Amino acid sequence: MNIYKANIIYTPTPDRFSFVRGGYICVAANGIVEGVYEKLPDEIQDHSFTDFGDRLLIPAFNDLHVHAPQYRNLGLALDEELLPWLEKYTFPEEAKFADTDYARRIYRRFVHELWMQGTMRSSVFATIHADATDLLTNIFRESGMGAYIGLVAMDRNSPDYLQNTPKQVAEYFERLTDTDGIVRPIITPRFIPSCTPDMLRLLGRIAREKNLPVQSHLSENRSEINWVAELEPDASCYADAYRRYGLLGQTPTLMAHCCHSAGEEMQMLRDNDVVVVHCPTSNSNLASGIAPVRVFLDNGIRVALGSDISGGHHLSMLRVMQYAIQLSKLAYARSEGKLPYLSLSEAFYLATKAGGSFFGKVGSFEKGYDFDALLIDDSYLNYDDYSLEHRLQRYIYLGDDRDIRLRFCQGRQLLEPSNF
Amino acid sequence: MNIYKANIIYTPTPDRFSFVRGGYICVAANGIVEGVYEKLPDEIQDHSFTDFGDRLLIPAFNDLHVHAPQYRNLGLALDEELLPWLEKYTFPEEAKFADTDYARRIYRRFVHELWMQGTMRSSVFATIHADATDLLTNIFRESGMGAYIGLVAMDRNSPDYLQNTPKQVAEYFERLTDTDGIVRPIITPRFIPSCTPDMLRLLGRIAREKNLPVQSHLSENRSEINWVAELEPDASCYADAYRRYGLLGQTPTLMAHCCHSAGEEMQMLRDNDVVVVHCPTSNSNLASGIAPVRVFLDNGIRVALGSDISGGHHLSMLRVMQYAIQLSKLAYARSEGKLPYLSLSEAFYLATKAGGSFFGKVGSFEKGYDFDALLIDDSYLNYDDYSLEHRLQRYIYLGDDRDIRLRFCQGRQLLEPSNF
Repeated sequence: MNIYKANIIYTPTPDRFSFVRGGYICVAANGIVEGVYEKLPDEIQDHSFTDFGDRLLIPAFNDLHVHAPQYRNLGLALDEELLPWLEKYTFPEEAKFADTDYARRIYRRFVHELWMQGTMRSSVFATIHADATDLLTNIFRESGMGAYIGLVAMDRNSPDYLQNTPKQVAEYFERLTDTDGIVRPIITPRFIPSCTPDMLRLLGRIAREKNLPVQSHLSENRSEINWVAELEPDASCYADAYRRYGLLGQTPTLMAHCCHSAGEEMQMLRDNDVVVVHCPTSNSNLASGIAPVRVFLDNGIRVALGSDISGGHHLSMLRVMQYAIQLSKLAYARSEGKLPYLSLSEAFYLATKAGGSFFGKVGSFEKGYDFDALLIDDSYLNYDDYSLEHRLQRYIYLGDDRDIRLRFCQGRQLLEPSNF
Repeated sequence: MNIYKANIIYTPTPDRFSFVRGGYICVAANGIVEGVYEKLPDEIQDHSFTDFGDRLLIPAFNDLHVHAPQYRNLGLALDEELLPWLEKYTFPEEAKFADTDYARRIYRRFVHELWMQGTMRSSVFATIHADATDLLTNIFRESGMGAYIGLVAMDRNSPDYLQNTPKQVAEYFERLTDTDGIVRPIITPRFIPSCTPDMLRLLGRIAREKNLPVQSHLSENRSEINWVAELEPDASCYADAYRRYGLLGQTPTLMAHCCHSAGEEMQMLRDNDVVVVHCPTSNSNLASGIAPVRVFLDNGIRVALGSDISGGHHLSMLRVMQYAIQLSKLAYARSEGKLPYLSLSEAFYLATKAGGSFFGKVGSFEKGYDFDALLIDDSYLNYDDYSLEHRLQRYIYLGDDRDIRLRFCQGRQLLEPSNF
């Protein structure tokens, strides 16, 4: 068992932070939290512990929607509209991952930066390329961080140079044996417009047969929604198109964006226990609009956060939290106060425990949770008489990767990946 | 004369960047730019130059609305509504600046961070305290950076412990002799609700007699606008209340926010050559709404950018640029494409040349401009075959203070302020 002493902060519930100043956290040999204590219990009174001093210990971040092959394009072309952005930047870049040497170089950098930013679990879109996707899987395994990794399926309305066939996708999943562990595959139709009914049916079948989770995009912008309505006229809404193919909650499901989900679609998301992945940086950059996060939460729909690079411009989940709050404030202003904005503890909960729930007991320091944690040194920010709560606020709004001193995933301390 | 060789980037006009790969910039002994060249002209062919290699040389940033005494509160209390935020955090913090030792400690940190973030000119709200405001002036003078510094005038609708009188304000300005140079005073009514007619009349008179610029807040949110309409029933709009006291363009004038300026007020801003200071981070954090920046620009109204800490959560003008673009994209989406969003070159222009114009010929590298510049080392971002334009995009979206290697203001290289 390892015991760490620090200022321990986490969100068992979204409504408030739990602060334990100079507290102790006990982590079993298997990486599972045994408990958080203000004073060590009698029976382990004499156990040695590691003293992290006045630093902050928080759950690590979870990024539930991120496109690994777009890492090279971070920050680029955000002046472009969605279609030219895809055609001139995104698709040609993804095509490069046919070359595994190129893929190795970029994917190593991507995984390295996830480590830097303190994102210990992520749900990742790769590309159509099986070899490069295997490579990404191996790079994650070497890193010690958790990830669900999706070979992207796309066989229509996409450039010829960036399509795979249902046969290729089926072969990829037949070959996979290692579908447990903290790095594992996830079924990943790019979105309805880029998959034929054959492909979607196949993906639904594999998800069911192999009991694999699913991730895709939903209701990101209006023209996409209209397009889906044309392509799938029998579906009652965009979400229903996924549902009809077994891709909406039949196994655990992530749907990114949902900026324009309402009415029946919202009900369907709740009834099928779908996790909405809110991507506020991307929604701002791509002018998608503001997702109705408060309405989702009030209706009992699960919500997590995603960086969605390179639609989002940064992998830092601190920034994603900031934008989630700020967009909710603009929605609050527009609703004339009817839709309360996200509190800081809510945003933190979304980035830790809510997102982590997709990976198991992850994202909190309650008993039974995986010890995924970041040790934060905020001493340069803490130059005056700040309370613990204010220190956390300042770290979230002002901090960056420099402040993270140690990173843990499932109890293991992870060193900086080398060879990136 | 100094000659520097680098990849030179600036925006003579908002519509596009000017890139000179491996170009030369000649700076006269008085700190004024003589010219930018692809090749050195014959007559200075043999002049020695400093080679900055493959790095980027860009104009330094200008922050046209920033509250220095709120520096300690950066990142704090952004869950609070505006009124409790003012009453519980902002006003008590500003009151501390009666203590010059405290003021020295916080103001040194503030000026140090402006330096870190590459903001070489700023227009600053201080507090009601003459001694602390003089101190801030001296700290800026020692730093070498330019600043307009405003003793804040407020004598009503404010806590008793944070008010000054017209007499105190008049004495402060009578005493000031040094009103030229790159650090100088600016007339600063907090805003209409916190100043009596006597105070406003006095400020208008001092501005006219001493030919001093003016800064204040305008139309930040709806309840404030309604309040001003009650307090100044004879004014035709909020801006007109300032105008009637000689505080709207009679001398060069900055008005922060203008989120809800329209119709007659917009016309008045244009006719009086007022510079609107757009503060998008603050407007998001405080749920003020999205200022109609595109409409201002289309109507020939001058616009600059401000961090507005601690309503804004960060001093980095990179972040302010990002939010300016992103909010304009949300306005674009809401207008169904009728209001084009800000391009990257427009945002850069606002943060450099447009803001700089308030301080003279500042914010560009054209002949006759002050050499205010940042040398950027983006090598960690430039790991693949990126064009110069893409390198700049990535620096703006992904860069931070670590990337700034050298800072110049009026031709002088400024080292890190010590004793902060």
